[in-house]
Amino acid sequence: MLFHVRMDVHIPHDLDPGVRAETVAKEKAYSQELQRQGTWPHIWRIVGEYSNFSIFDVADGDELHRILSGLPLFPYMDIHVTPLATHPSDINA
Amino acid sequence: MLFHVRMDVHIPHDLDPGVRAETVAKEKAYSQELQRQGTWPHIWRIVGEYSNFSIFDVADGDELHRILSGLPLFPYMDIHVTPLATHPSDINA
Amino acid sequence: MLFHVRMDVHIPHDLDPGVRAETVAKEKAYSQELQRQGTWPHIWRIVGEYSNFSIFDVADGDELHRILSGLPLFPYMDIHVTPLATHPSDINA
Amino acid sequence: MLFHVRMDVHIPHDLDPGVRAETVAKEKAYSQELQRQGTWPHIWRIVGEYSNFSIFDVADGDELHRILSGLPLFPYMDIHVTPLATHPSDINA
Amino acid sequence: MLFHVRMDVHIPHDLDPGVRAETVAKEKAYSQELQRQGTWPHIWRIVGEYSNFSIFDVADGDELHRILSGLPLFPYMDIHVTPLATHPSDINA
Amino acid sequence: MLFHVRMDVHIPHDLDPGVRAETVAKEKAYSQELQRQGTWPHIWRIVGEYSNFSIFDVADGDELHRILSGLPLFPYMDIHVTPLATHPSDINA
Amino acid sequence: MLFHVRMDVHIPHDLDPGVRAETVAKEKAYSQELQRQGTWPHIWRIVGEYSNFSIFDVADGDELHRILSGLPLFPYMDIHVTPLATHPSDINA
Amino acid sequence: MLFHVRMDVHIPHDLDPGVRAETVAKEKAYSQELQRQGTWPHIWRIVGEYSNFSIFDVADGDELHRILSGLPLFPYMDIHVTPLATHPSDINA
Amino acid sequence: MLFHVRMDVHIPHDLDPGVRAETVAKEKAYSQELQRQGTWPHIWRIVGEYSNFSIFDVADGDELHRILSGLPLFPYMDIHVTPLATHPSDINA
Amino acid sequence: MLFHVRMDVHIPHDLDPGVRAETVAKEKAYSQELQRQGTWPHIWRIVGEYSNFSIFDVADGDELHRILSGLPLFPYMDIHVTPLATHPSDINA
Repeated sequence: MLFHVRMDVHIPHDLDPGVRAETVAKEKAYSQELQRQGTWPHIWRIVGEYSNFSIFDVADGDELHRILSGLPLFPYMDIHVTPLATHPSDINA
Repeated sequence: MLFHVRMDVHIPHDLDPGVRAETVAKEKAYSQELQRQGTWPHIWRIVGEYSNFSIFDVADGDELHRILSGLPLFPYMDIHVTPLATHPSDINA
Repeated sequence: MLFHVRMDVHIPHDLDPGVRAETVAKEKAYSQELQRQGTWPHIWRIVGEYSNFSIFDVADGDELHRILSGLPLFPYMDIHVTPLATHPSDINA
Repeated sequence: MLFHVRMDVHIPHDLDPGVRAETVAKEKAYSQELQRQGTWPHIWRIVGEYSNFSIFDVADGDELHRILSGLPLFPYMDIHVTPLATHPSDINA
Repeated sequence: MLFHVRMDVHIPHDLDPGVRAETVAKEKAYSQELQRQGTWPHIWRIVGEYSNFSIFDVADGDELHRILSGLPLFPYMDIHVTPLATHPSDINA
Repeated sequence: MLFHVRMDVHIPHDLDPGVRAETVAKEKAYSQELQRQGTWPHIWRIVGEYSNFSIFDVADGDELHRILSGLPLFPYMDIHVTPLATHPSDINA
Repeated sequence: MLFHVRMDVHIPHDLDPGVRAETVAKEKAYSQELQRQGTWPHIWRIVGEYSNFSIFDVADGDELHRILSGLPLFPYMDIHVTPLATHPSDINA
Repeated sequence: MLFHVRMDVHIPHDLDPGVRAETVAKEKAYSQELQRQGTWPHIWRIVGEYSNFSIFDVADGDELHRILSGLPLFPYMDIHVTPLATHPSDINA
Repeated sequence: MLFHVRMDVHIPHDLDPGVRAETVAKEKAYSQELQRQGTWPHIWRIVGEYSNFSIFDVADGDELHRILSGLPLFPYMDIHVTPLATHPSDINA
Repeated sequence: MLFHVRMDVHIPHDLDPGVRAETVAKEKAYSQELQRQGTWPHIWRIVGEYSNFSIFDVADGDELHRILSGLPLFPYMDIHVTPLATHPSDINA
């Protein structure tokens, strides 16, 4: 099923720059692997913020929590998940 | 460019049922025409609420406001628009 | 999968008392049928409020939205849904 | 009586990893002992957050506060407690 | 056990003045009977608001909900309940 | 006159444990002295939180501010004060 | 003692214009009488809003509540009261 | 001096359509007259909302309140005013 | 013109005590000088908080910002400014 | 198209003063270059706050995010972007 996820990243200012760069790189690879698998079909940057809106297509809440809590930036994120359903006006439904 | 839109519908309880049904039907047709044109590429129901998250692909704010303020249910909606940018991790970007 | 749902009921003061009583009776029957089927395993009253916390066990967001939007009191409710996952400390997991 | 509890965990980024691991392990043991005793009948992870919704079955507010303030992670938690009553539609009531 | 309760009263402007006066009078009698029984040991007006802070001494959440939902003004109130415990500095504890 | 006070304590995690213990002990003595004088007639723990609801009986705002800003834990507290009046239903008024 | 009061006025759109005008006139007379007595030493309009910030100088919460709940516009107001104390930097203190 | 103003319009659904159209037309004329005078140098529609952000250039708060409270739609608006100062990076300052 | 200002002070716990005392002393002198000039006609302590409500009488937003951003405690303050106008009921207007 | 942007700056108290001064200077130069290009046509200080309201004139969300995320103070800012459309009453439209 589909979930709408908002992620807000708050990396501490005193995080070691090398650790920071490595974590951000790992995050990108982790996200792109899930995009290629079709699990993370959409990700958009929110203009002006270190934040994104994403859509996930997973089996259930357990799979989604495993994915989100495994994000390399998870310790520095506020995440809010909203469950989605098919909209009756959706022409692709 | 892309915009993320949340719409919350609050139809008054005392609206004439015929008017209500007709307005909801017009809303569906209006939305589906824009979906077919590619202007409204995504619409999802928020589970448990008379609300949706949508993505719009328009030229600019003027076009988006013309579309949203023309929604048959516009007088009964709270709408919040968030501008989007390409995410650096997006494999389709 | 499991979802946590909060429902807050706001029946208009000028609703016909007969309609009100009938709607509340239908709501009870609707809820109890779903409880018997195992779809709505928990429902608790929030002390002092015309509100409840409930747990639903459904296939996905589509099933949950069909159930919630079919509640006889749905037009008078504010509903907020939170997706759940198994907790790593849960002895029953 | 029953209480609904939401716990949000915010462990400081600079907590010693050994202390952190030990505290989390103690928290799990503490929770599971109370689950086995029937005092903490439900615990669910909130998807995407280091948070849980729990149900406690205790004698009164004094017992619940003693339990919650004794949680090994209590210094790092925001906790919100909501008192519950039997719902008139509950088929088990 | 003890509960802290905040009640905010919002009587509709178009309520019949006779009904209003009668309901307010019933509310006062209902409250005073519970005060005499020791169930409602404290009630204070919040200055400038049609609101009160109260303390209730009841067996559990079921008893408190029965009392609060039976208030003659209940349909016109927003109520928020907070469970209390003995404070370790309380000289009367 | 009477005031309703909510205090939320946020002691920094890195405060020296000895300083912390000494401050908490001073706070208790300070509170109990005021309770014995009748200035602080009620104090209740909010279940699950390092917080209390209190009632103060003082001459005016100057006296209350002197008392609250003199609390040993004052630098670590968020405090919100609400002025009270006699409730017309209060049987002791 | 002094209290800071914010008043926000929300007169229903369907109030009879004559009743409205009469109530607003009574409110003005009521306010000016209290200003002349020194009980209501300051009143300022909040720019762009049907609201004011006021300072009251009264004996206690009982007197202030009697004054505020007696305002002709009280049924249409949201009021928030904040107790004040002498500021240590005040050159008039 | 300059003020930033946000206006949100909430016209009641049951307002007579003729009255509504006339009020909206008066609002437009009123706004344009002030724009021509240089008092209301900027007005922008907030996309998706019946709202605007505006900049006013007036002598003081009295002049601004006289203008805003004279808006034909004032009874149906929520207005929030923020005072502005010259920004040190402004190349036109 | 007049402005209503709320200031909330949050001095970091680890600020050097000497620097803190010196800054607080400078703040007092700065405030009292402006009070003597008639620019800062009122300052009140909010009971229980390290906060004040103040009234400023200045030429415009530029003058007020220069004053507020020059406060010795400015780096540690949250400040909210509300523009004021003469109230039509003010007997001194 | 036009966007309305609010920026709130929160520079950590322990940032090296030299780094701080240099970053603020770079921010000013960066802003003024964009102002000269016509991309950042308005910037106003919010009185009493280390904040501004700005208007940007850019091609789309991608260009705006590139500009905002490149601000030297971006790591220390909370930014909120609102998309704008032409207002039907705007005499310059």
